[in-house]
Formats: sequence, structure tokens, C-alpha cells
Amino acid sequence: MTNVRIFVTYKPSVFDPQGETIKEAIQSLGHDEVTAVKAGKFFDVTLTATGEDVARAVKEIADQLLVNFNMETYTYQVMEEA
Amino acid sequence: MTNVRIFVTYKPSVFDPQGETIKEAIQSLGHDEVTAVKAGKFFDVTLTATGEDVARAVKEIADQLLVNFNMETYTYQVMEEA
Repeated sequence: MTNVRIFVTYKPSVFDPQGETIKEAIQSLGHDEVTAVKAGKFFDVTLTATGEDVARAVKEIADQLLVNFNMETYTYQVMEEA
Repeated sequence: MTNVRIFVTYKPSVFDPQGETIKEAIQSLGHDEVTAVKAGKFFDVTLTATGEDVARAVKEIADQLLVNFNMETYTYQVMEEA
């Protein structure tokens, strides 16, 4: 069994209005030390697969469902494999 | 300068309808190896602070803005410190 965390973010070239708004809200609370905020989504996926099968499944799930490749990109991280 | 990633998730006791719906959609694509999906948000925050000041700032930002402690909880990870 494998746990992967798939991170979905806007591409660097795409404006992130949520992150920008949150940055301004944080600064208005007095946290001038915060200079940038980017917002993203993540999905913790548990699979019965391991190894190469995980990489293939994550790619298919991202391609077919989780990611809008016009505006977004993704990375993933294997959190636990047993 | 420090980059931290703040992860916000539902508490384990709170039902995650988005994750459940995505799990069903993934399975309907034929990925029966996927047994659970949890959805969450993350925020990449860049601060000019370092060390203990980062921990304090993250706690305040989470408490005052990012997290609904009735339903959600958070963790964070220092991605880069320079």
C-alpha cells in the first residue's frame, strides 16, 4: 500500500488571485514579513499499488481528472510505501 | 528568507465530500487500486523572517486567517531557509 500526496498549483505564468488576496489579508494583520503567498490544492491518495505502478496511476489520474493543464501543473511525493 | 508550506485539511472526524467524490471518479475511470482520497489546501508563504520568528508567524497566520479550527487542522513544513 502506498500513500502519495499530489500537489496541484497554477503554472508560474498564471495569476493566482487567491494567493494574492491572502497575502494582502496577512499583511493587513501586521505581518509585513510575508512577501508572497501562493495557494494550491493537494490530494492524499492511498493505492494498493507499489513502485512503477504508482507512478503510472498518478500520471493517469492527474491527466484525466485532477489537473487542468491549461492553467495548472502538478507534482507528487510518495509519503509512505509499505 | 524562508519558504514554508502550510497544509490545511479537514480534521479526521469531519467528512470530506470532495475527497470522497474524487475517489469515486477515479475508481470509475478503472483505477480500482485507489482506496482513499483526501482533499486539502496548501499555501506557500515566503517570509523575510527566520528561525523562531517563522514558527510564531505561521501560528498567528493559521490562527487568524487560514484555518477554520471547528472543522480543519493544519501542519507546516519549512521548504527552504536562507
